Amino acid sequence: MRKIRIYDTTLRDGAQAEDVSFSVEDKLRILSKLDEFGIHYIEGGWPGANPRDAEFFNQAKKITLRHSRLTAFGSTHRASLTAGRDPGIKELLAAKTDVVTIFGKTWDFHVREALRVSKQANLDLIYNTIAYLKKRVPEVFFDAEHFFDGYRANPEYARKTLEAAASAGADCLVLCDTNGGTMPGDIGGIVHDMARSFDIAVGIHAHNDSECAVANSLIAVEKGASHVQGTINGLGERCGNANLISVIPGLKLKMKYSCVTDAKLKKIKDVSRYVSEIANLRHFKRQPYVGDSAFAHKGGIHVSAILRHPETYEHIRPERVGNYQRVLVSDLSGKSNIVRKIRDFKLKIDPDSPRVTEVVKDLKRLENQGFQFEGAEASLELLIKKTFGLHRKFFDLIGFRVIVEKRREGEEPLSEATIMIRTPQGVEHTAADGHGPVNALDRALRKALEKFYPQLRDVSLIDYKVRVLTAGKGTDTNVRVLVESGDGRHKWGTVGVSENIIEASWQALVDSIEYKLLRG
Amino acid sequence: MRKIRIYDTTLRDGAQAEDVSFSVEDKLRILSKLDEFGIHYIEGGWPGANPRDAEFFNQAKKITLRHSRLTAFGSTHRASLTAGRDPGIKELLAAKTDVVTIFGKTWDFHVREALRVSKQANLDLIYNTIAYLKKRVPEVFFDAEHFFDGYRANPEYARKTLEAAASAGADCLVLCDTNGGTMPGDIGGIVHDMARSFDIAVGIHAHNDSECAVANSLIAVEKGASHVQGTINGLGERCGNANLISVIPGLKLKMKYSCVTDAKLKKIKDVSRYVSEIANLRHFKRQPYVGDSAFAHKGGIHVSAILRHPETYEHIRPERVGNYQRVLVSDLSGKSNIVRKIRDFKLKIDPDSPRVTEVVKDLKRLENQGFQFEGAEASLELLIKKTFGLHRKFFDLIGFRVIVEKRREGEEPLSEATIMIRTPQGVEHTAADGHGPVNALDRALRKALEKFYPQLRDVSLIDYKVRVLTAGKGTDTNVRVLVESGDGRHKWGTVGVSENIIEASWQALVDSIEYKLLRG
Repeated sequence: MRKIRIYDTTLRDGAQAEDVSFSVEDKLRILSKLDEFGIHYIEGGWPGANPRDAEFFNQAKKITLRHSRLTAFGSTHRASLTAGRDPGIKELLAAKTDVVTIFGKTWDFHVREALRVSKQANLDLIYNTIAYLKKRVPEVFFDAEHFFDGYRANPEYARKTLEAAASAGADCLVLCDTNGGTMPGDIGGIVHDMARSFDIAVGIHAHNDSECAVANSLIAVEKGASHVQGTINGLGERCGNANLISVIPGLKLKMKYSCVTDAKLKKIKDVSRYVSEIANLRHFKRQPYVGDSAFAHKGGIHVSAILRHPETYEHIRPERVGNYQRVLVSDLSGKSNIVRKIRDFKLKIDPDSPRVTEVVKDLKRLENQGFQFEGAEASLELLIKKTFGLHRKFFDLIGFRVIVEKRREGEEPLSEATIMIRTPQGVEHTAADGHGPVNALDRALRKALEKFYPQLRDVSLIDYKVRVLTAGKGTDTNVRVLVESGDGRHKWGTVGVSENIIEASWQALVDSIEYKLLRG
Repeated sequence: MRKIRIYDTTLRDGAQAEDVSFSVEDKLRILSKLDEFGIHYIEGGWPGANPRDAEFFNQAKKITLRHSRLTAFGSTHRASLTAGRDPGIKELLAAKTDVVTIFGKTWDFHVREALRVSKQANLDLIYNTIAYLKKRVPEVFFDAEHFFDGYRANPEYARKTLEAAASAGADCLVLCDTNGGTMPGDIGGIVHDMARSFDIAVGIHAHNDSECAVANSLIAVEKGASHVQGTINGLGERCGNANLISVIPGLKLKMKYSCVTDAKLKKIKDVSRYVSEIANLRHFKRQPYVGDSAFAHKGGIHVSAILRHPETYEHIRPERVGNYQRVLVSDLSGKSNIVRKIRDFKLKIDPDSPRVTEVVKDLKRLENQGFQFEGAEASLELLIKKTFGLHRKFFDLIGFRVIVEKRREGEEPLSEATIMIRTPQGVEHTAADGHGPVNALDRALRKALEKFYPQLRDVSLIDYKVRVLTAGKGTDTNVRVLVESGDGRHKWGTVGVSENIIEASWQALVDSIEYKLLRG
């Protein structure tokens, strides 16, 4: 069983996707997530082209990776300088990674029109850059840009570029379908030929412009590639890169190559959703393997068959990729989910109680309004507790007022909240300011409650997310707020939905506090 | 040049997608659109299983198709009845289409576990159904359900099911990868073998559960299939069907098969968007060939190359599929992106001015703060105009105050905004309420300005998006607001960033208004 190395470039090529812009903090979080998932190589960025990437590599040095090797990306050195004097190469070395990936031109048309040097000069650039780096970095990979187009145009020259990289000591020759235009019928023969010609590893880097990136990657492995580059969810410039979230289960479950463990594979849906969340993109429902619809059955015939034998209409068991079967237009799946949640939450509730059906109905109604409980399980737990009479209130709101006032252009406005609440121990009326209206309201509410419930001092807000739900109607649309809170030992998520962002935030903040107080 | 027949099943398999539900009217509109586009066969539905489909076929009789043949779908007749007495077969004939497609079992496991008849009985069902229909309908196709799984399990039996269909007079044997689990490396050999074994047409019907449906369809054609089934945008149950919007340009532009004309191909983006519109799904930006991002370039190196030679980073000319090249602005961008934008915006500015460098610097600073101009080109245009002294102000803010007040639990809070502005024509002090604080402020600002600038009455907010930027710090984090506005003729996007959502919204709203007033 050949071992396939997975190389993720979400942080570089993925960041080229339209509407995607990762902060340094975002990149560090994705790095940790992918390391935990067991990706072999994680390309962090191009330090020579982007100051934010240089900053990322600086910060990343403080993180100890357990499974992955961090990789820095760069180009061959400038023709006017030696490798050692090229500032881009210096930046690459300053990143201090164990692996460096260098891309170079392989298509003679590009050498002439984009790089504007002679064909021999380009071969020298490739050789000199890799030879220089190979003395200073343990592993050096060569990304053969436009290899398939180059090979079609001038096979002899394209092969020479690989020979230059190999003779300079490259550890892997990565054949790139940079424009994503290569047909699946054309990939296999070229990869096979190259894998046979070189005694070092050959890799594949496919783009999805023809909607063939995943298939092209799988075909390349079948024909001898042992290194696959791609991104989480196929994020990337134009139509994106090969989607590793589909490549990995294809390799492992269908083609029986070794790449990640069975236990890690069960986390792949979680990894996919995590990156969508950080990129602030909605997770694609029909996404193979991990989408919410990937194992959802609608047709009556299919449903009765899959209930007897899931393999009749499911290509794999969804549990293997952390997903699950759903039956649409039926409360069957709903009820069993709630029963499962009652068990997960360790609630002392009879799962056969007719009130479970009530919870399912409530949930459907709330989800229609835009609530979503996947990132807000504390709100779900409160909902179940309310239905079963296991909930109690800790305070009543008498009223709040939030004021945002701007008195001069170019100045940040002032935000202030006043609040009055009643608890069994008395009434409190107080006020707080904040960096914005929600922050002010959050601070005023805590200030009022901490007097009676000092345990709330341990609680802090970890994350706050806003999503506008029904696009297309301007500023008077529904807004969903997700809040993540923690008290040092636990973390919990809550949700609120309203036309009014203050009200939606209020719902999520109140749920967060009630959840904490109910836990005691 | 082999002619390939395209068979669309958006109206049947596509309607199985989660969240998709077509009315009869929707289906008739899609039918006309696909006919105009030149699809050879359009599967309208399964009249025996769905009363709404029977109604559709009734209505469709009134429509004269110019290019397409309408097809009705059904199953082999029931084992307990003859074909002539089966109500499903009667409904099929009542649809009065020139083509009927019958699906039948080819996987012995399914024959036993789902159909629950003997293997011989299943062969008889296939033969009898097709023979009966072939006497009454000009063209009859056989959808060989689960053919690839069946062939892997029992190749001899799977082949016999095709032989039964062929000897009964079927016009095409469609090999279906019903569960979508077949790898690209396994498709070609089987299709080749079947295409060689039968002297009638062989087709392919692929599902996308392994993200290989388009590639599997293209491979099948290469290996002898001459009929391809799929759906517009890959709509369909679970992960969807083969996406015809990618299959068609792949066949025509890359593999040089004949399927639709050059002129029709230019309409393919329009067809794709039309079906998304009717299905009420947002069009996928990264969709190959036709997505808004499909020919969008972000990296600085790429941009300077494509401006000289588009083929350096574009696999086809976007115009061939009715799409166009776009240059995005991001922190990876350099001067060449801005020069391109100055041209796109038709600004009378010398692209060699040193001020262009100033704009690039400003952009980098703003992007570090969290600004993003990809969805906010109007804000970018204003920024360039400001740097070049082409901007003027239409009003000064004297001050605003936004109040959100909640006086009772369970009640939506009230939102009110007051605003005072100065214009060359005078001062206005006014107030408005709204569904939330941003909506109230938006309404108050317009109310104040419309008195002096009546052209603002045509402007409306189309979309409003919020993104919390530096997750991990609670409610006091930076917030980015993107606003899309329109005046019936044009649409434009603007952006604002602040710790305070009201301030961020204010910036985007003011940009939107200034952009409109500057255009005159």
